[in-house]
Amino acid sequence: MRSGGGAVIRVLVVHDACLVRSVLAEWLRRAPDLGVYDTPWRSAPARARSVRPDVCAVDLEYSDAYGLPPLGELRAREVGRTPPHLLVLASAKRPGLLRRALEAGALGYVDKEGSPDNLVRAIRRVAQGERFVDESLGFGFLKAAEMPLTRRELSVLSLAAEGASVAEIAGSLHLSHGTVRNYMAAITRKTGARNRIDAIRISQGEGWV
Amino acid sequence: MRSGGGAVIRVLVVHDACLVRSVLAEWLRRAPDLGVYDTPWRSAPARARSVRPDVCAVDLEYSDAYGLPPLGELRAREVGRTPPHLLVLASAKRPGLLRRALEAGALGYVDKEGSPDNLVRAIRRVAQGERFVDESLGFGFLKAAEMPLTRRELSVLSLAAEGASVAEIAGSLHLSHGTVRNYMAAITRKTGARNRIDAIRISQGEGWV
Repeated sequence: MRSGGGAVIRVLVVHDACLVRSVLAEWLRRAPDLGVYDTPWRSAPARARSVRPDVCAVDLEYSDAYGLPPLGELRAREVGRTPPHLLVLASAKRPGLLRRALEAGALGYVDKEGSPDNLVRAIRRVAQGERFVDESLGFGFLKAAEMPLTRRELSVLSLAAEGASVAEIAGSLHLSHGTVRNYMAAITRKTGARNRIDAIRISQGEGWV
Repeated sequence: MRSGGGAVIRVLVVHDACLVRSVLAEWLRRAPDLGVYDTPWRSAPARARSVRPDVCAVDLEYSDAYGLPPLGELRAREVGRTPPHLLVLASAKRPGLLRRALEAGALGYVDKEGSPDNLVRAIRRVAQGERFVDESLGFGFLKAAEMPLTRRELSVLSLAAEGASVAEIAGSLHLSHGTVRNYMAAITRKTGARNRIDAIRISQGEGWV
């Protein structure tokens, strides 16, 4: 409990670059109502279990694997406790990551292009179980809602982006080679790409895969 | 001049995410010998000309275009003044970006996985025109030195990664289609990739293109 009477909000900052994470955590510690912890992604689920934060504040655009962050792991359910609320640092330029955060049940969406004061406001709001969405992320959410690819197409594209061949994709998704080629053609058309490599580039840029 | 007598070191922090940049700049401002300015990449060259910093501290892994940062533009020469010294925030995981920074004449190399105190030490060193290299970046430099691709192969790969077809690559580099295919085959072999898409993925992950 802090002297003013209200409970301290426990915040776990998740970001892979120690330098950025430390500076961000130290900045947040100036707010007397926040108890701040920080961790890289690889130890984030374990830290979330031990720290028991009210809010996990997560940078969506940086992860060890340069892939999609495993947001769900931060909110794993345990008997006798409520999982932490999820807040993400995001960008309107990468609607795919916004969509992932929505699917993972994030309550807070803070624009990385905005002021850090927004982050403190968002943490307080999300700790109450209320939604916080930066206005400047509006266009990103619009694009996220208009995502042109089906779940199946995304699976095909993810494997292709990892360097899998048509035969390998067909094998792991139990599809014929022709079907995989049809999916790749549909993906290329829908993303407005010139070819397969261009489709992967566009989709990665927007954070779909 | 600061009260202690020594000149204030003018530092320009370059990072695209306003939230991270502001917090980092504010953190640096606690050091009494630093005069800190900050800017996103798109206005960095203009800001470097107006602020006339002693040191530009640049995050290599974040840029508007999700491509390679135009480091050279920060050190454009002007009559009657010395260009700022360059310091980069880098990661051993992306040797290609370290190599770019070397080629751009950077004096300071600070590991993003390290403590932010290193950044202050590095700024002071680089401002004196001395080199600063975080020990933990050693392996990254080793890999940078071992870069397997020739300049020509990198040009071909960069265009391929942007989604250009063999015909388009051939057209823009004035090569025959067969030569472009040979380059792509060599690139795939040298990067240990399974295919062209895998070669692009590996090379982007390490920051070569």
